[in-house]
Amino acid sequence: MTFSPLTPELVVAFEGIVGPAHVLTAQRTEALQYETYGRDHTEDFHFAPDVVLRPGTTEEVSAIMRLCHEHRVPVTARGAGTGLSGGALPIHNGVVLSMERFNKILNIDERNLQVTTEPGVVTEALQNAVKEVGLFYPPDPASKGSCFLGGNLSQSSGGPKAVKYGTTRDYVLNLQVVLPNGDIIWTGANTLKYATGYNLTQLMVGSEGTLGIITRVVFRLLHYPQHNILMLVPFRQEAQAAEAVSAVFRAGIIPSGMEFMEREAIAWSSDYLKIPLTLPEDITAHLLIELDGQDLDQLYKEAEQVYGVLEKYDVGEILLADTAGQKDDLWKIRRNIGNSVRYNSVYKEEDTVVPRAELPTLLKGVKEIGQRYGFKSVCYGHAGDGNLHVNIIRGELTDEQWNVGLRQPISEIFQLCVKLGGTISGEHGIGLVQKPFMHIALAEANLNLMRGIKQVFDPHGILNPGKIF
Amino acid sequence: MTFSPLTPELVVAFEGIVGPAHVLTAQRTEALQYETYGRDHTEDFHFAPDVVLRPGTTEEVSAIMRLCHEHRVPVTARGAGTGLSGGALPIHNGVVLSMERFNKILNIDERNLQVTTEPGVVTEALQNAVKEVGLFYPPDPASKGSCFLGGNLSQSSGGPKAVKYGTTRDYVLNLQVVLPNGDIIWTGANTLKYATGYNLTQLMVGSEGTLGIITRVVFRLLHYPQHNILMLVPFRQEAQAAEAVSAVFRAGIIPSGMEFMEREAIAWSSDYLKIPLTLPEDITAHLLIELDGQDLDQLYKEAEQVYGVLEKYDVGEILLADTAGQKDDLWKIRRNIGNSVRYNSVYKEEDTVVPRAELPTLLKGVKEIGQRYGFKSVCYGHAGDGNLHVNIIRGELTDEQWNVGLRQPISEIFQLCVKLGGTISGEHGIGLVQKPFMHIALAEANLNLMRGIKQVFDPHGILNPGKIF
Repeated sequence: MTFSPLTPELVVAFEGIVGPAHVLTAQRTEALQYETYGRDHTEDFHFAPDVVLRPGTTEEVSAIMRLCHEHRVPVTARGAGTGLSGGALPIHNGVVLSMERFNKILNIDERNLQVTTEPGVVTEALQNAVKEVGLFYPPDPASKGSCFLGGNLSQSSGGPKAVKYGTTRDYVLNLQVVLPNGDIIWTGANTLKYATGYNLTQLMVGSEGTLGIITRVVFRLLHYPQHNILMLVPFRQEAQAAEAVSAVFRAGIIPSGMEFMEREAIAWSSDYLKIPLTLPEDITAHLLIELDGQDLDQLYKEAEQVYGVLEKYDVGEILLADTAGQKDDLWKIRRNIGNSVRYNSVYKEEDTVVPRAELPTLLKGVKEIGQRYGFKSVCYGHAGDGNLHVNIIRGELTDEQWNVGLRQPISEIFQLCVKLGGTISGEHGIGLVQKPFMHIALAEANLNLMRGIKQVFDPHGILNPGKIF
Repeated sequence: MTFSPLTPELVVAFEGIVGPAHVLTAQRTEALQYETYGRDHTEDFHFAPDVVLRPGTTEEVSAIMRLCHEHRVPVTARGAGTGLSGGALPIHNGVVLSMERFNKILNIDERNLQVTTEPGVVTEALQNAVKEVGLFYPPDPASKGSCFLGGNLSQSSGGPKAVKYGTTRDYVLNLQVVLPNGDIIWTGANTLKYATGYNLTQLMVGSEGTLGIITRVVFRLLHYPQHNILMLVPFRQEAQAAEAVSAVFRAGIIPSGMEFMEREAIAWSSDYLKIPLTLPEDITAHLLIELDGQDLDQLYKEAEQVYGVLEKYDVGEILLADTAGQKDDLWKIRRNIGNSVRYNSVYKEEDTVVPRAELPTLLKGVKEIGQRYGFKSVCYGHAGDGNLHVNIIRGELTDEQWNVGLRQPISEIFQLCVKLGGTISGEHGIGLVQKPFMHIALAEANLNLMRGIKQVFDPHGILNPGKIF
């Protein structure tokens, strides 16, 4: 794929579309601000865009795409830049299309339990807005306080509540999308059921900005669960924590959160946040278990059942969060593990996922591979979904070890995932950094189908080039 | 698209692949049996296959597809033939690929709450098998006693429980698929989360046998809900029944069934089944409401809330089903409405779907259009999903009226659906009979994307030609 350079004429044309204030170039933008548009939260990568555009309407996006399609200019859409696979990095330069001005919630439809929103709304802002009328938008990636809904859709994001409520994919009903040639479509209908041709809505979810630009979203909503119970369960043996996860589900309970945290994950995060937490010497891992629902008595019954399951394991003293403040603190600790690891060291995050009951085998394998290749990892994640985030710490590794040497052990981790019935990404996407490993999870025939689909949507290959495959 | 005729050499080659006993032709098969392979449950259509093949393994399917791909022979996959949109009709003749021998449940994985199965298993047989170990596969189309899982996947089937538990789409984790060129792929992984490139699994669901042949399926399962409460609620005004549907959801209750039945729907079905049912003169419609869960006390609480909502409407005496037998009877009546209508008259079934709260407007519109164009309709369906099955009764309509005259009013019904945020099929698919109406729901740009995707999977257009678009 060869692209055309960005010409001064094109910059003028962009100014005509979005207004000069929303056309940012390196020459006329404060350096630190401009640099942000070339980064996301993936390792320490940076790629400079030729120009950053901040459209405000679907029609502006359409006009931009039409021009770029015609002139073969790469376009990388960008949400809040919190991605962990490099999906928003403009590796072929060109246009970064920042969706930050698509920040309006358009309609909360209480009659139909739906919301129509722009994609540049922060996930938590949507959650708060619908909560005000008693409604619930469950998907809650760790970055929910800053990430955008559009990014969640592009990466098929999950979060702790996915274990009970499903991921972003399970809430989207309909998408307005600008295709690379500038055409504006709606992918489906605002209905709970849909059997009207190929499901373009579901195809867009997880397509990482390579097929079209999402400009509007219709999500379904639930009623906000009135009550919850949160417990932090310390384990003396890591493997037992992983085993207890599937035991809880096999007892017929579906927690609204089932998070696994290695000792170091929880220790680093509580230090980073300066939230004190007692961590006895012999504790090697924790489960953070949340139950939620409309009826508190019912939740207490379920909590007793959970206790019954946990009794069979070698657990320390279970902390049952008493107050809203204590609950917030525990979730804050869980959500800031990634930040605290980043604060301690450059790291690579692998988003491994396996069938739930295979988690102990995966965890054991990761540690064994780490030992063999001499790297340290901090593991945590959405254990109820079999989704383990493996953070490989740079520490004292040389450039050579870091950039080249880790290829083989990471491949082995992914091969283990696939052998266990899993895959190489559960909720972060492939983006740039997992691309070299796609052949481990997918046959050449699968990749060819994906390339073919890409070609149908984007014949000139201008949208987020160089990602996924 | 031009296809090649079936040659005697090809028939011999097929015999070599599946064995002569599983190659059926009109010449050597009992007429009534052979004719079955040219029909489904859609109106009174019949198209004769040139040959019917009954493969027993994935490798046999692959070998058949490779041959047909090479020789440009149309292939129409067939499940149990219970489809309502003509999806399994071999309108270009050629091969009918009957999946009836793919009837084995391969592995119920209690540790991971998953099941691996062949697609020719009857839906209810799967439900019963997993129920024996306390597990639950929720999707339950009306034809669950005879339809195949593969058909459910192809049409994105729902059923009454979809309102709480989602449709077939929400349970499939991974599919083994034979592509038109004979390649065998798995579309994803056996995991609850998946962000590893374009979601081919979800693309296959609802693709109506036009992209590939499903040969194995991995579904996720739930724990079987121990208890349920079922109530039949008679309404004096049809519109109020439709209104009460969204009122129940807005009260924060999620029933496991929320079915709407016009007076005639329920009367015809109870007559057909010879299950007596008291139907006072002034009753025009019913809601069948089911609540389910693990805790009976909790269900009684919810039932009280439902009664509280219903009090606001002009309802007759609510029948609370006392025994398992009574519950079975009520569900049997609901599930046999389609059969009873078919028993009374040839009919066209429209699978309209709108956002839930728009149901009263849709129902009113359907009746108004019927009055204007002089046809009678019997309406019923999954009201909780906004999914209304409109059965247009042939009655005394002439061939001209039936075949041509109904185009315009059906178009108007679908236009109303789309205006209300809905679409032209919720769970039956497009197949043959809804194809002429696709442009009402979808823009040309959408249809072009679908055609492009079809071309990627099936460059010679041999799989189920003439369907969807």
